[in-house]
Amino acid sequence: MSLLLRDTENYGNVYIEDTAIAEIGCGAYDVDTVIDAKRKALVPGFVNTHTHAAMTLFRGYADDLPLQTWLADWIWPAEAKLTGEDVYWGTKLACLEMIKTGTTAFNDMYWHALESAKAVDEMGIRGVISNVFIDIDGRTDRSEEEAQRETKRLITKLTKDYSDRVIPALGPHAIYTVSEESLMWIAEFAREENLLTHIHVSETGQEVTDCIEKNGMRPVEYLDRIGFLGPNVVAAHCVWLDDKEISLLAKHNVNVSYNPTSNMKLAVGENVRYPALCAAGVNVSIGTDGCASNNNLNMLESAKFASLFQKSATNQPTMMPARDALSMVTKHGAQALRIGRGGGEITVGAPADLLLVDLQLPGMTPLHNLDSNLIYASSNCVDTTICDGVVLMEGGVVDGEEEILMKASETAFDLVTRRQ
Amino acid sequence: MSLLLRDTENYGNVYIEDTAIAEIGCGAYDVDTVIDAKRKALVPGFVNTHTHAAMTLFRGYADDLPLQTWLADWIWPAEAKLTGEDVYWGTKLACLEMIKTGTTAFNDMYWHALESAKAVDEMGIRGVISNVFIDIDGRTDRSEEEAQRETKRLITKLTKDYSDRVIPALGPHAIYTVSEESLMWIAEFAREENLLTHIHVSETGQEVTDCIEKNGMRPVEYLDRIGFLGPNVVAAHCVWLDDKEISLLAKHNVNVSYNPTSNMKLAVGENVRYPALCAAGVNVSIGTDGCASNNNLNMLESAKFASLFQKSATNQPTMMPARDALSMVTKHGAQALRIGRGGGEITVGAPADLLLVDLQLPGMTPLHNLDSNLIYASSNCVDTTICDGVVLMEGGVVDGEEEILMKASETAFDLVTRRQ
Repeated sequence: MSLLLRDTENYGNVYIEDTAIAEIGCGAYDVDTVIDAKRKALVPGFVNTHTHAAMTLFRGYADDLPLQTWLADWIWPAEAKLTGEDVYWGTKLACLEMIKTGTTAFNDMYWHALESAKAVDEMGIRGVISNVFIDIDGRTDRSEEEAQRETKRLITKLTKDYSDRVIPALGPHAIYTVSEESLMWIAEFAREENLLTHIHVSETGQEVTDCIEKNGMRPVEYLDRIGFLGPNVVAAHCVWLDDKEISLLAKHNVNVSYNPTSNMKLAVGENVRYPALCAAGVNVSIGTDGCASNNNLNMLESAKFASLFQKSATNQPTMMPARDALSMVTKHGAQALRIGRGGGEITVGAPADLLLVDLQLPGMTPLHNLDSNLIYASSNCVDTTICDGVVLMEGGVVDGEEEILMKASETAFDLVTRRQ
Repeated sequence: MSLLLRDTENYGNVYIEDTAIAEIGCGAYDVDTVIDAKRKALVPGFVNTHTHAAMTLFRGYADDLPLQTWLADWIWPAEAKLTGEDVYWGTKLACLEMIKTGTTAFNDMYWHALESAKAVDEMGIRGVISNVFIDIDGRTDRSEEEAQRETKRLITKLTKDYSDRVIPALGPHAIYTVSEESLMWIAEFAREENLLTHIHVSETGQEVTDCIEKNGMRPVEYLDRIGFLGPNVVAAHCVWLDDKEISLLAKHNVNVSYNPTSNMKLAVGENVRYPALCAAGVNVSIGTDGCASNNNLNMLESAKFASLFQKSATNQPTMMPARDALSMVTKHGAQALRIGRGGGEITVGAPADLLLVDLQLPGMTPLHNLDSNLIYASSNCVDTTICDGVVLMEGGVVDGEEEILMKASETAFDLVTRRQ
């Protein structure tokens, strides 16, 4: 398959062969498909490095509550009733929203992961798919051995039964919900199988306090001590870090996923130390978190929150300029998720995970600076979404959209009203 | 003229006669125009209580700079070249963006105010229009008397030459750019003529320090001492307030316009004391500020920033729930701008400044809670915008959009490249 993006505003003609960018600023070719890209700009697809896709079913279900009430009285009871079918439709809805807002790859952790994989496979974007691994909080009654066996089976299935866009990963929930033994086993298994590992780290001060009490050290030190850290780890949140922990994250090339919108909405109580993480050389990307705590999957909006929150928190209007924020949601994310050479960039050989953004919008007018308009002005500007060389949306329209909205809506209402 | 909104999701049929809501939840009528509102929800039009509309021309022109560099090297030199024609097209672009994102009334302060008024008149929304009044910063060479005479002339013109949707107001820029004599004259003139007065108050710590040094008291105390404060005053920003100042604002029924996005982007260094202002009974609404410091005019986005920033700053996830944030951008704003009885509410007799929001969007699915989806999930959901009983947008389409985008774009490039 070949595809020509004709007359993009910023790169001229761009020629895509199969799944990669083959030529930039080229002549016209005899190709299978031509897309007229006049008055549109070419931008790499966005990469969301922390989410729980199927939680779109809980969008707006329980907002403005204290954290413990929210979790214990609303989210956990609803999650206890979750079926695979729920997760399938929730993830379909999430993928639809991601395609419409320009996300071409995401890092997921949730229950019934095979259903998430099925949804990702059908929707055409890339998903790093992990099942939540929990063995010590009482929410599962599996033994450690059972949990490990299930995890192995799941990774085998995720690897074999779906397209290459489904990237199998491990999802140990957090240090307070996974036993030390399992964390060590996961680290070992990830190294053997070369798997990405997705974990929550230091989202709340409570986690830090508890870890110090239990282990005599802070969470990242603890993860270092047990040999968990490595370049395959995507650590979500990392809100509460001291200098030593930042050095450890840098030393082990851990990827940090900053979730500004969720952190602010849940009032986690501290500011992610973005300048210090950058100074240490840590790869920082951006996640939306799940829709119960954001409440959307719009990466440009989250990038604006990240940039403005960091400017405000550091008292420096020069902090995280638009260009850096854009890199965070493109190439930093692609690096974290190992999308491959050129991932998140517009360059020959890069994966054809690409967007055409509409420049004929009030928020894109005038066009003094495309990066500024993308990050600060215009979070709903994506006209065309391409992933792995396949056009998933053109002119803002995604195939099957109405059915997904209807089924996800029905599923969500059924779920929250269903008896245990 | 009569208009029927048929089958809105939340109010059933809504009947509008001339410029007001005549009946809610009524039968079908023989009316001039019927709009099919199935799968759409009815929401009051948003009210933006602080902006400089024509600054849309500077969207993305100079971001991520220190405040003084931004002003002195970029914004002021460009503004020095501004013509009435620039302001006209900049305001047209701003109105277009406002209509598309659901704003039906805004509070403006800028140069060449008659051109803003002309744009507002043509575009069909409501604008509280004031010219920037400055007499002591060296940016104008007018005497106080001249400035006062010009202001009177302008108010007469704004009152006589435009539709009632153009609401004349006074725009003393700030206490550090307007002489005490002029501030007192403006307060007196506003009382005589029953005019709204729009002023920047305590946006930066510098303003407070300078005021204490010069007047021996803080800005709001100073404004109280010279008799400036009253229910006709919209005070933009109010970032740096002490308890006594909050009491004074409450005592005089001053309207505060909170500008969360701008405050964060420019890193003004303090958090608006929203809980204390509420506790004192101050009417707090939301403004976007100009597009050079936001960089858009999307009120739902600004409401999300307000709510999430307040949750984060106060460490309380229950702070400014969606419902309150929605009230701030509707009825609190309408009260500040004196839109009239029922302004910013869906009630019989209220002005027909109304929106239909599209519920068939990923960000509106599922619909557990409309307020939550509006504030947290879906800042681009407006399908139909009605102001003063007139349909300004239907199906997301505004008449003349392409021409406005083209002319505003040309104007902006011409302005920034033009020689003095």
